[in-house]
Amino acid sequence: MNSFRVTPWEVEGSVDYEKLIKEFGTQPLTEDLKKKFVDLAGEDHVLLRRNVFFSHRDLDKVLDDCFSSKGFFLYTGRGPSGRMHIGHIIPFVFTKWLQDVFGVNVYIEITDDEKYVYKRDAKWNQIQEYAYDNILDIVAVGFNPDKTFIFKDSEYIKHLYPLALKVSKHINFSLAKAVFGFNNITNIGLIFYPSLQIVPTFFEKKRCLIPAAIDQDPYWRIQRDIAERFGYYKAAAIHSIFLPPLTGLRDKMSSSKPETAIFLNEDYETIKRKVMKYAFSGGQPTVEMHRKLGGNPDVDVSYQWLYMFFEEDDKKLEELREKYKKGDLLTGELKQYLIDKIWEFLEEHQKNKDKARRKVEKFMYDGKLSKRMWDLEFEDVFSE
Amino acid sequence: MNSFRVTPWEVEGSVDYEKLIKEFGTQPLTEDLKKKFVDLAGEDHVLLRRNVFFSHRDLDKVLDDCFSSKGFFLYTGRGPSGRMHIGHIIPFVFTKWLQDVFGVNVYIEITDDEKYVYKRDAKWNQIQEYAYDNILDIVAVGFNPDKTFIFKDSEYIKHLYPLALKVSKHINFSLAKAVFGFNNITNIGLIFYPSLQIVPTFFEKKRCLIPAAIDQDPYWRIQRDIAERFGYYKAAAIHSIFLPPLTGLRDKMSSSKPETAIFLNEDYETIKRKVMKYAFSGGQPTVEMHRKLGGNPDVDVSYQWLYMFFEEDDKKLEELREKYKKGDLLTGELKQYLIDKIWEFLEEHQKNKDKARRKVEKFMYDGKLSKRMWDLEFEDVFSE
Repeated sequence: MNSFRVTPWEVEGSVDYEKLIKEFGTQPLTEDLKKKFVDLAGEDHVLLRRNVFFSHRDLDKVLDDCFSSKGFFLYTGRGPSGRMHIGHIIPFVFTKWLQDVFGVNVYIEITDDEKYVYKRDAKWNQIQEYAYDNILDIVAVGFNPDKTFIFKDSEYIKHLYPLALKVSKHINFSLAKAVFGFNNITNIGLIFYPSLQIVPTFFEKKRCLIPAAIDQDPYWRIQRDIAERFGYYKAAAIHSIFLPPLTGLRDKMSSSKPETAIFLNEDYETIKRKVMKYAFSGGQPTVEMHRKLGGNPDVDVSYQWLYMFFEEDDKKLEELREKYKKGDLLTGELKQYLIDKIWEFLEEHQKNKDKARRKVEKFMYDGKLSKRMWDLEFEDVFSE
Repeated sequence: MNSFRVTPWEVEGSVDYEKLIKEFGTQPLTEDLKKKFVDLAGEDHVLLRRNVFFSHRDLDKVLDDCFSSKGFFLYTGRGPSGRMHIGHIIPFVFTKWLQDVFGVNVYIEITDDEKYVYKRDAKWNQIQEYAYDNILDIVAVGFNPDKTFIFKDSEYIKHLYPLALKVSKHINFSLAKAVFGFNNITNIGLIFYPSLQIVPTFFEKKRCLIPAAIDQDPYWRIQRDIAERFGYYKAAAIHSIFLPPLTGLRDKMSSSKPETAIFLNEDYETIKRKVMKYAFSGGQPTVEMHRKLGGNPDVDVSYQWLYMFFEEDDKKLEELREKYKKGDLLTGELKQYLIDKIWEFLEEHQKNKDKARRKVEKFMYDGKLSKRMWDLEFEDVFSE
């Protein structure tokens, strides 16, 4: 039986994304809508073309708001439970692209509170260290420092709290139980937390588009139930699948299982060793058999990573696929190809991260947008 | 059947305080312990002598800490759901006396967050207005401005939040349900709130003594379960009964039923009208019958108010009681006696409240203690 489970805190099993669309009640990202999207953006993006973003809510309305120049804003986030890996950075790469092509504001929530209450043995200071390191990774992606506000919940809480309380009044325990799978042993910090993740969707009186992995959708479901009562728009979302772990196509990459992921701070040697050792192969047990029978790219994680993100060139990708299937390309060769692609991406990322330290202030406190956010009181939300 | 119900948000029926002591698992305030208390304080207080404070947790240990000069600190609070009445101010009068005789710090939490999430139709701005007005009433009581910190949850939240999260990890929904009577339709803001009320018990690494009405005890019960795991003391408490409503001995005074209470801002005429009209009388239906049969002070609210707070002089009180029982004192006369006593107290209070506006800054931001509290980060609590 193909059973799986997706909540904001756990992804288990081999996820059936079509089934998830039905379960969560989201919309598939059709070719028609993608075309409209790409036309408006003026360019395509590999993550769209390869269906890493595969589902949405109200993306069509966001595009309409663009046409009618009402505009929209972007919101995404990161739970600082450890160092970031490739799977974590992908939604940020896409969000950055969206900012570039549409010229809109981006709000990035660092949910240190969530990560602290979620794990029983989480240490506050450890989470704060991860938060700072994660922020550097996010800054390294290259957002516009005057149109991006990165904030840590525990630090920005004075601004968030009244709004979170307002949100919390519309969510009773039954609803939280049904949507997030809470139960009697869930602690009251985690029970309250969803309020905090919903608040940033009310940062502007425009439609909010949230690029994030599909596991975050439960929050937006609740937001969409209450937003209009607040005089705000229902949040729109564009959902990504999970980049599969190195070790196979089930579950998602996990920081607690280092063999499943490539971390953003890893060097060439480590990446090479991990991919060579752990990347699940669709190839045959021996070179002779592989030459004869060929490999299966559909279960081969190296091929899947190239498909989903690392090989943007459609022709090149098709060529790899054909060669691999025919047995002309060996598993080791395919892996080496991926290793070089990953390193190309990470070498650049690591350089940018070195420079990020000097830019953090702007994103968090004194850029054009961040400064405005620290001055804001959100009083209008209470004026009703 | 004598049924009653006491939670931090509701008091219903005729409260059986002896039964409550057993139900809550607190200790009765014995004459022995009171004597020890009064000896150490160097003076007595009417609210102790008349058993308005009737129950406690670890008060004996607080007194021991005084003897051994470890010291302790005081913590109490106010939920700003409306204007304050006589019943609200009494614990503050007692707390102020404790500060005077023991020379200790007092922390006063204004729970605007709680009141906002508790009432479905509560308006944020209205609660903020009440909060400011309530703070003026509290300042008027005469606390030491360099040893008192008055803080509003929503304003001091950045300091409170990390500690509240830490507390929240030790309270699961089952426990919150059992202790506070939460259920499936309780909103997730109210479910989280107890964490916030527990935090101030960790403001100092000394024992915390909480003078408050008995309905607040559920919070301390949970605090006492977790405090030692945090490396802190279990909170001590001294519990008061509820000053009965004018209208009779059941329930407690309620801001939403103005006939049950005397508000701190009411003038002489209003007080007189209310007491004359609403104060439940233990007297006889006619003057003739009263002269003949006498009144019953035990059910007479005017007498009870004099007993509990307004007539400090034991001899004078005994005299009133005897005269009333004999029929020498008429209900109208007893009421007038109470009216004068209330006005004596409120006239002074209202003068002090006028001056309080100028003092608020010190209590909230730049007194010796309040300034220190704004500089504090509570990092030690996370060092474990």
